[in-house]
Amino acid sequence: MRAEIITVGTELLLGQTVDTHSSYLSRECSALGIDVYYHTSVGDNVRRLSEVFRLAGSRSDLVLVCGGLGPTMDDLTKETLADVLGIQLVQDPDVVARLEKYFDGRSQQMPQNNYKQTYVFPDGDVFVNLNGTAPGLAVSKNGVTYVLMPGPPKELIPMFENSIRPFLIDLLPGNEVIVSRTLSFFGIGESLLEERLKDFIENQSNPTIAPYAKEAGVTLRLTAKAKHEQAAHDLIAPVKAKILERVGEYCFSENEESLEEVVVSLLRGRQRTVSFAESCTGGLLSHLLSTVPGCSLVLKGGIVSYTDEVKNRMLDVPADILDEHGAISPAAAESMASEAMHKFQSDFAISITGVAGPDSADGKPVGRVYIGLAEAGRPTRVYQLALKGSRGRIQLLAAKHALFILQQRLKKGETTT
Amino acid sequence: MRAEIITVGTELLLGQTVDTHSSYLSRECSALGIDVYYHTSVGDNVRRLSEVFRLAGSRSDLVLVCGGLGPTMDDLTKETLADVLGIQLVQDPDVVARLEKYFDGRSQQMPQNNYKQTYVFPDGDVFVNLNGTAPGLAVSKNGVTYVLMPGPPKELIPMFENSIRPFLIDLLPGNEVIVSRTLSFFGIGESLLEERLKDFIENQSNPTIAPYAKEAGVTLRLTAKAKHEQAAHDLIAPVKAKILERVGEYCFSENEESLEEVVVSLLRGRQRTVSFAESCTGGLLSHLLSTVPGCSLVLKGGIVSYTDEVKNRMLDVPADILDEHGAISPAAAESMASEAMHKFQSDFAISITGVAGPDSADGKPVGRVYIGLAEAGRPTRVYQLALKGSRGRIQLLAAKHALFILQQRLKKGETTT
Repeated sequence: MRAEIITVGTELLLGQTVDTHSSYLSRECSALGIDVYYHTSVGDNVRRLSEVFRLAGSRSDLVLVCGGLGPTMDDLTKETLADVLGIQLVQDPDVVARLEKYFDGRSQQMPQNNYKQTYVFPDGDVFVNLNGTAPGLAVSKNGVTYVLMPGPPKELIPMFENSIRPFLIDLLPGNEVIVSRTLSFFGIGESLLEERLKDFIENQSNPTIAPYAKEAGVTLRLTAKAKHEQAAHDLIAPVKAKILERVGEYCFSENEESLEEVVVSLLRGRQRTVSFAESCTGGLLSHLLSTVPGCSLVLKGGIVSYTDEVKNRMLDVPADILDEHGAISPAAAESMASEAMHKFQSDFAISITGVAGPDSADGKPVGRVYIGLAEAGRPTRVYQLALKGSRGRIQLLAAKHALFILQQRLKKGETTT
Repeated sequence: MRAEIITVGTELLLGQTVDTHSSYLSRECSALGIDVYYHTSVGDNVRRLSEVFRLAGSRSDLVLVCGGLGPTMDDLTKETLADVLGIQLVQDPDVVARLEKYFDGRSQQMPQNNYKQTYVFPDGDVFVNLNGTAPGLAVSKNGVTYVLMPGPPKELIPMFENSIRPFLIDLLPGNEVIVSRTLSFFGIGESLLEERLKDFIENQSNPTIAPYAKEAGVTLRLTAKAKHEQAAHDLIAPVKAKILERVGEYCFSENEESLEEVVVSLLRGRQRTVSFAESCTGGLLSHLLSTVPGCSLVLKGGIVSYTDEVKNRMLDVPADILDEHGAISPAAAESMASEAMHKFQSDFAISITGVAGPDSADGKPVGRVYIGLAEAGRPTRVYQLALKGSRGRIQLLAAKHALFILQQRLKKGETTT
């Protein structure tokens, strides 16, 4: 089934509102196995709205429309569609009764405007709005089904879940299901990942394999269609295994988790704690871990030591090291990690010191970052990175790299980067 | 000038990504006086992409296209548009040199794939990408100008601001100049701000006044059109003054700075230093300050004390306070701030302790946050907040509130919140 989504409202075209409905409805359609081919946003304008409806009717089987069902004069969606389809709207006594009751419950007289919302498509469907006055509507003509939903998210989402999803399931032909599996990678770029998997990506159609660059890292989504769920999983499993054979060392999640979620879950599973000593990331590393609910079982805390004086006084990094090697050095990273582990009495500690830019510092270039990993009973290891990008990007990549190093250590019992 | 925006990417149609570019670009166009009539999202599919380009070319003067400029096989935007327009792409030696240098700087061989990104429209424009490999492109044919931009926000937004906005201004007919001034507010919601300024917003057409909700806070953009720049500034000045008379107490920048930039600049101007003691924000507050270049002159450091044990051992928060009042209490916030100021030997210190959720803690509801502000020679003050939203949202609002409190203190010599 070919579907498209139309969102209506001049506020969208002025950029005053971000269209989150298209994304929400697309996700829902995808889960139902309905292919969405277009999203369109258009203003409250009869001529342009008519054109958009005509085009949609010519190329799609299902047209989902959001917005423009309000009581005011500039709400034109329903009236314009009725006109395009040559259908006369009729007043629905059930809707009249419901709306009058709605205003009665608020001790208000129903405004004259709202009677506009009681007109529906004859032979169409009407969906109750639990959180507002505009009912949802559906109508089919010439093999195309149009579904009209109110624009406010607090009205649209409950209506979709209660009434429209079941309505769509009834529309579906056959019984194909779609299953997706997402693999998350760090430490390998999108184009290199694709190059390493080129033959799979080109020759594979079920499951399809699609790479996406994320804020830090890359994901691969494997999507299979089959008669039932288990069959779809069976199509994905061998392809996934072949991919992991080639690039598994960079894969940190098969389950759409973030690196910080994976680290918290590994630490919890092993009943280990961690602490941090951060310089150029200024607390981002500990903050990333703190975004995960339940982190308090594994995160002891951290020290942000932005100046040499604080590194020395609060972290006991020896003045010798700071004088001789500087604060941006392997020796400083090692000392920061070891001291943090000691002070916080944690099982692991990670330090980050480096140059986030925009200017070089201490004779080191922008992007030079040292990460120390301390672990009870083992020598502290130090990793050197050369990162690129803006100050914010270098901070983010440094913190994510630190998490990846810890994840590798926790997963394999040894670091591989 | 009639414009439309096309975003390209199958991930949009699967609902994996929310299209924020259409909204961003619409706002920018609106500020330039360019009318946007349609947004369309379409997948990486030659046939459908061609249809969308043909339709856009038939109804718009300006077509802004985002996404599908990557190095991989499913990035088809540029090639498809060239095909629709009947133009042969040519390799641009400047782009080749820039990309080879880009990979050289990363000590990598340039992947074969990326050479695809060196092809451009002959007689078109090329826009440098400071944060990635895909250059932006522009081409005009039959009176329609097409502008192609890379999809990742960190590439698109700087490219738009540095190159594409000036390019669009050159396209504008006539010799009107447009000047915008953005006022940034914190501590007042978008609807309340709009209500307080309703008469201005409704009756004002030059400058226009447009409120936008930001990640934390609200901005008002005043945009004036005039024959020359000074005349536009003269239109803005009296309206700005009237607005600040009403809601100036919430305004922290007239210059599009973030709260953290304003705080760093105020601290530098007064030669004061700050340190932090964070619990529920996990280091976000110090990280926000560390995103500002030059923060090392004012940021001493911070302690993330995620457990009671660390609050007591590392910060010397008395066990009495933790036992009697709990870690989420005004007394704990006061002690954390005072101790941090003492330990880091800073002029100011801020503490944050609270419940970020998803579960309540210590008998305190989700969103309850205490912020302590310590200052040499003054009693430490504690502020209580009741924040709403997800864990991440509560963390962000708590950290921004702390910065706002410090900004108010630095600006006025006293706190007003």
